[in-house]
Amino acid sequence: MLFYKLHINYLTAFFKGGNHLRNSEYPKLRPRLIAKTLVPENQEAPIHFVSEDILSDRLFYRRNHFPYPSFASAFYFLPIEGQVHTSKVFSLQEIYSMPAKTIKVVLECAGDKRELFKPKVYGEQWGKGAISQGIWKGVSLKTLLQYTGLHKNAKEIIFEGHDYGKRPDSDKVYNFSRSLPIEKALDPDIIIAYLYNNQPITFEHGFPLRLIVPGWYAMASVKWIKRIIVVDKEFRGPFQAVDYIYYPNQQNDNGKVPVAAINVNSTIQYPLNMQLLRAGVYEINGIAWTGDGQIAMVEISVDGGKNWDKCKLALSTEKHEWVRWSYTWNALKKGEYTIKSKATDSKGHVQPSEPIWNRKGYGYNAIDHIDVKVE
Amino acid sequence: MLFYKLHINYLTAFFKGGNHLRNSEYPKLRPRLIAKTLVPENQEAPIHFVSEDILSDRLFYRRNHFPYPSFASAFYFLPIEGQVHTSKVFSLQEIYSMPAKTIKVVLECAGDKRELFKPKVYGEQWGKGAISQGIWKGVSLKTLLQYTGLHKNAKEIIFEGHDYGKRPDSDKVYNFSRSLPIEKALDPDIIIAYLYNNQPITFEHGFPLRLIVPGWYAMASVKWIKRIIVVDKEFRGPFQAVDYIYYPNQQNDNGKVPVAAINVNSTIQYPLNMQLLRAGVYEINGIAWTGDGQIAMVEISVDGGKNWDKCKLALSTEKHEWVRWSYTWNALKKGEYTIKSKATDSKGHVQPSEPIWNRKGYGYNAIDHIDVKVE
Repeated sequence: MLFYKLHINYLTAFFKGGNHLRNSEYPKLRPRLIAKTLVPENQEAPIHFVSEDILSDRLFYRRNHFPYPSFASAFYFLPIEGQVHTSKVFSLQEIYSMPAKTIKVVLECAGDKRELFKPKVYGEQWGKGAISQGIWKGVSLKTLLQYTGLHKNAKEIIFEGHDYGKRPDSDKVYNFSRSLPIEKALDPDIIIAYLYNNQPITFEHGFPLRLIVPGWYAMASVKWIKRIIVVDKEFRGPFQAVDYIYYPNQQNDNGKVPVAAINVNSTIQYPLNMQLLRAGVYEINGIAWTGDGQIAMVEISVDGGKNWDKCKLALSTEKHEWVRWSYTWNALKKGEYTIKSKATDSKGHVQPSEPIWNRKGYGYNAIDHIDVKVE
Repeated sequence: MLFYKLHINYLTAFFKGGNHLRNSEYPKLRPRLIAKTLVPENQEAPIHFVSEDILSDRLFYRRNHFPYPSFASAFYFLPIEGQVHTSKVFSLQEIYSMPAKTIKVVLECAGDKRELFKPKVYGEQWGKGAISQGIWKGVSLKTLLQYTGLHKNAKEIIFEGHDYGKRPDSDKVYNFSRSLPIEKALDPDIIIAYLYNNQPITFEHGFPLRLIVPGWYAMASVKWIKRIIVVDKEFRGPFQAVDYIYYPNQQNDNGKVPVAAINVNSTIQYPLNMQLLRAGVYEINGIAWTGDGQIAMVEISVDGGKNWDKCKLALSTEKHEWVRWSYTWNALKKGEYTIKSKATDSKGHVQPSEPIWNRKGYGYNAIDHIDVKVE
């Protein structure tokens, strides 16, 4: 009887919907975020399967230093204090009613591609997917600061997030805080965002307010802003004075430089690394981006870097956005191939042949490469 | 007005549910399958975050050679033909009404951990997650064959799947087909399954009928069985005569051996590779499994393999199942550590120190290792 009922269920399912029987429609394959750690949540975008230029919240990579914070957003206010003429506390309604700015922007984690460094580097082992793009809307920080004014000795602006916890290297509890130098902070493209893709920013991505610093690695784009503090000296919080610094040496801190603008970079999305291909014609494609200026050129090599050819760039290249590129490859001869992509930006930055190793594994931007075999 | 409404929406959300404001409950983190290729669908389990011993269908890795097949399962029948006394065509109802067998079993792709081979090997770059475990219910193949009988010259039994397509190395269209030698096929643990975790097998995992061959790598566990053919000679289909063979040499086929039983193996689930830890006491944990016998012992080294200590094994170890192991580690001294896990099975097989490289990248089972740093 049980078995009979089971079979009836199958039949019912078939006559009701049954579209799982046509492979053109089923299953609907949705690539998902790729978990790196769960607490705190760190997940990367399945970047090789991302064909959109505006990522849904669902596909946007997540990078957290601490567990998700706990605060009552219904009673949320944003204080701006410190070296200002008038300290102010803004309600969300006040912020929503100010002149708004909308920007399409690449956010990339400074640790994107960290797993590719050799020797390997401790920390989250990001593949190539700690990068996402979408549309943020909010008020320019510059506009907001007009309500408070700035003392003339104002030097930096600190953005404190609601997220907090202990770091592996200390027993102290810290909030996630980052500062911007005043000159940078007044760039009108820097916004306090409240919408992502025309929807309230989701909690995971910084609801109700997230700083967006276009062109900089995304540690600067502080989530869940708790308060903004204008200071007259250099901020020395650990996410600025310990982490997010390029340390070129394994054994000492000589030559250290803070992480800031996104390096010129590119990623081959198709084919996949170590893929077996039938002889044929393929569209090699991917994305390229930079933090400074625009992408000017992407070159492809299908012989491991001996010869380079310019790619087609899709549409015009905009500041702060990635550009899609493609290259038609006649892969008619059997054999093994190393495919490389190399981006150049309008400021003349070019991806280096070798990654610039640093102790904490930031800013990887070596020429991308994959190996494939034509059978 | 728009902004006002937006804010009202926030408030409403807060008073209605609001549990996204308590980090203990929100967000509910669900690790997902990790996409390797989408067409055909190949996705691995997020094995480092799998704490269950019975994986939901959602978390079960997917390995396909071809796009999903298209057939009308409501009119499904299973033919058994060839070197039998009486060819038979079974309806699903007949199969459901036969004496059933339920087994909890590890399925592991022969290519699991392929990305760890050096030199690298072409094909899907499986990490450590092309493995899953759950409960299958069905009729023993041996029982089913009693209805048809076997000719005395029967040598192998071919299982043909409904899935088909072209391989990268040929223009011919093949169904996915695999055979078992008669002696193996009559093992009463080999079943034609129709339930997974007490539910009809989902389409992605072989609905309505899937062969389950416990103890062998999962290429043997043919999905969407179309027909069963008893033959009097060796089957030479490409998934048997070309793929799923260990080729020890890069340049020639000398010494080739078919892939069959699962090698003894283990995976460290926690800590994660390259993780930064605070000084403290940690439970190193993971899984161990084998295709032949049971897991007898798992040993851990926290000094890169110089000293080994026996682990606690959770519960008793059963044939065909993975066993969870854990080891308490007093990580009180700062420094860098290489942690290794080594499983031994009841037949005396031990994980080798170095992987046994082979041209197609099957059966990786070297001692697992991770690097961590205590700060």
